[in-house]
Amino acid sequence: MEYVFSERIKNLKPSIIREIFKFTSDPEVIAFSAGNPAPEAFPVEDVARITAEVLEQAPVKALQYNITEGYFPLREALKERLLNKYNIGRDFDELIVASGAQQGIYLTTKVLCNEGDTVICESPSFIGSLNAFRSFRLNLCGVEMERDGINIESLERALKTEKNVKMIYTIPNFQNPSGITMSLEKRKALLELAKKYNVIVLEDNPYGELRFEGEHVPSIKSMDEEGHVVYCGTFSKVLSPGMRVGYVIAPAPIIQKIVVAKQVADVHTNILAQIVAKRFMTECDFDGHIEKISHMYGERCRLMAGQIDNFLAPYVKYVMPQGGLFIWCDLPDGVDMLDFCRRAVENKVAVVPGNAFMMSESEPCNSFRLNYSTPSREQIETGVEVLGKVLKSMM
Amino acid sequence: MEYVFSERIKNLKPSIIREIFKFTSDPEVIAFSAGNPAPEAFPVEDVARITAEVLEQAPVKALQYNITEGYFPLREALKERLLNKYNIGRDFDELIVASGAQQGIYLTTKVLCNEGDTVICESPSFIGSLNAFRSFRLNLCGVEMERDGINIESLERALKTEKNVKMIYTIPNFQNPSGITMSLEKRKALLELAKKYNVIVLEDNPYGELRFEGEHVPSIKSMDEEGHVVYCGTFSKVLSPGMRVGYVIAPAPIIQKIVVAKQVADVHTNILAQIVAKRFMTECDFDGHIEKISHMYGERCRLMAGQIDNFLAPYVKYVMPQGGLFIWCDLPDGVDMLDFCRRAVENKVAVVPGNAFMMSESEPCNSFRLNYSTPSREQIETGVEVLGKVLKSMM
Repeated sequence: MEYVFSERIKNLKPSIIREIFKFTSDPEVIAFSAGNPAPEAFPVEDVARITAEVLEQAPVKALQYNITEGYFPLREALKERLLNKYNIGRDFDELIVASGAQQGIYLTTKVLCNEGDTVICESPSFIGSLNAFRSFRLNLCGVEMERDGINIESLERALKTEKNVKMIYTIPNFQNPSGITMSLEKRKALLELAKKYNVIVLEDNPYGELRFEGEHVPSIKSMDEEGHVVYCGTFSKVLSPGMRVGYVIAPAPIIQKIVVAKQVADVHTNILAQIVAKRFMTECDFDGHIEKISHMYGERCRLMAGQIDNFLAPYVKYVMPQGGLFIWCDLPDGVDMLDFCRRAVENKVAVVPGNAFMMSESEPCNSFRLNYSTPSREQIETGVEVLGKVLKSMM
Repeated sequence: MEYVFSERIKNLKPSIIREIFKFTSDPEVIAFSAGNPAPEAFPVEDVARITAEVLEQAPVKALQYNITEGYFPLREALKERLLNKYNIGRDFDELIVASGAQQGIYLTTKVLCNEGDTVICESPSFIGSLNAFRSFRLNLCGVEMERDGINIESLERALKTEKNVKMIYTIPNFQNPSGITMSLEKRKALLELAKKYNVIVLEDNPYGELRFEGEHVPSIKSMDEEGHVVYCGTFSKVLSPGMRVGYVIAPAPIIQKIVVAKQVADVHTNILAQIVAKRFMTECDFDGHIEKISHMYGERCRLMAGQIDNFLAPYVKYVMPQGGLFIWCDLPDGVDMLDFCRRAVENKVAVVPGNAFMMSESEPCNSFRLNYSTPSREQIETGVEVLGKVLKSMM
């Protein structure tokens, strides 16, 4: 039989990062291409103990169907934490547990956007979200990033000129892939523009708690008095990505529609993982754990940045991240980025070509993304030195 | 802010079964309205032991990101079991792990169907699938059920006259909600029609292993020599629905597209649950466990049928199921079905009104669905007697 696929899927390609994973199964390859938490970042003993207790004390609850909205005590604990710690959540808001923040972004898009609508994105931006938008046949409008976040003038121009803009998608903290943090002024300006042009802000904050430098900047959601912001968070970077537990907090009418959309998508999120996440968050030293891994990532980031200064400067430019998992490097003019990435992996160092994060992979891009959470100290030291040699051989 | 939802979502309602759940939180209500495994059906000790071992022996693997296709040993073990036990899987097939069979159905629809395409369904059919189809704005064409499955003549008429038919959706074993099993002859005829009209068969088999009466009937997928059948299975009814582990086996080009669609939907399925499912299936007495719960459901089904014979016959008609979880009851002419269901729940017995399973809830329907896996023996005895009193009061 010859298969005809839907219009929305037939041109959608697997993420280029997945393709690079194939090289990284070679144990000799140093992978700067991942976005995984460090293997040492999992609170293994707490998870094992809590899981055993749950399966001892209330096994049927942990194995039976649950409601689509999510495990009630987890939802309550998340709301309380978000409100008390980050001033997130108003009377008009509700919270749903999602199977990762990825599902939160996916379902928000599904309920708010029709095919052909426009979503404005930071350019570059997270490929998983861009592909989710593409899978609903949205028009992606990229707005360039500056050192303090999205260019606000360009954003307003896009809001004025693009047709059927439904959402502005942003990762304000330690953005993937750029590592950039949006300033408070720009967050306020972005929210004002969303209100002025009556569009939704989709605020994606997977890395926000992984700050190792500088001061906390209030989230856009914390300033949302009129229900313009949908906020996605996750346990993936602060507990475990394999659990697939994230959440969306947004005005109740939006959450009600997301519940309906989730019901047909996967009924509910794995319930044992929800119970474990709830208990880890409320019974263990969750903040201490986050501080510990943030500190570890800060050390690795500084080590990697130092190696870039040693072996890639002054040719390569980057913005030093204040948290998160990534450093974004701009190659000098005249160096072919894809050729550089290819030579790097031939020399057993995998990086992600920057064009993966553009609105279209064919857009000009002379940058690449490095991850410092997954590799060891030794791999960071060796790997960046190799990248330096590759670059020098090309100049 | 006033919210405008996407066309695909704005008219989609939560499942009526969910609404009935609200009544069943009242502990005095006997719930014949669920589709849950019995609380006694969970292999709690095995799951607890395996989970503890996994978190002791390979915790990082169980907590880290994994690939979208699913945990490799689980995929291999599933392929082997399906092939050896059910002759399912050809050289051209591949398998992906999904977050429940619901996700398998959802993603298959997403990759194969455009808005406005037609999916032919058994009428009545499973509301979760119908709502998934609706969420992609498909045209639902219902074909009536007979005692041995879908009416083949009507099916061919629909294939001839409906526009852009992409899929025939069927639950051949112990169908939800009708309890009906499709005969071998009809399975063959359905596959021939799919080949003749070049459409996909979406074979949903969540209950197939829960047979307590009669002989196994080969699946449509087992007869699929040319790649017309997408087969969805799940651990929900034979291990745990809360784990959300199902799978799709289908021709490789379809699976490749489902992988891309799943990547943007939820990245991958909870990995610990996949490892536990794999080990329970291969290291424990999986077949013995399935036999045990099937036997238990058979006892409860016969008990419920006996009570129907005692208290609802000869007014109510039903087809005795050979497996699965449900009995579908037809009320006599002149009794208002919705009124009956309302009076039942007022008398503390919850059943599901049959129109929930029709292509449109406004279609005429004089049936209701009973579940016998969740209630206890005592509840089955008392509850059906109450239904008898309600019916008699209405005649």
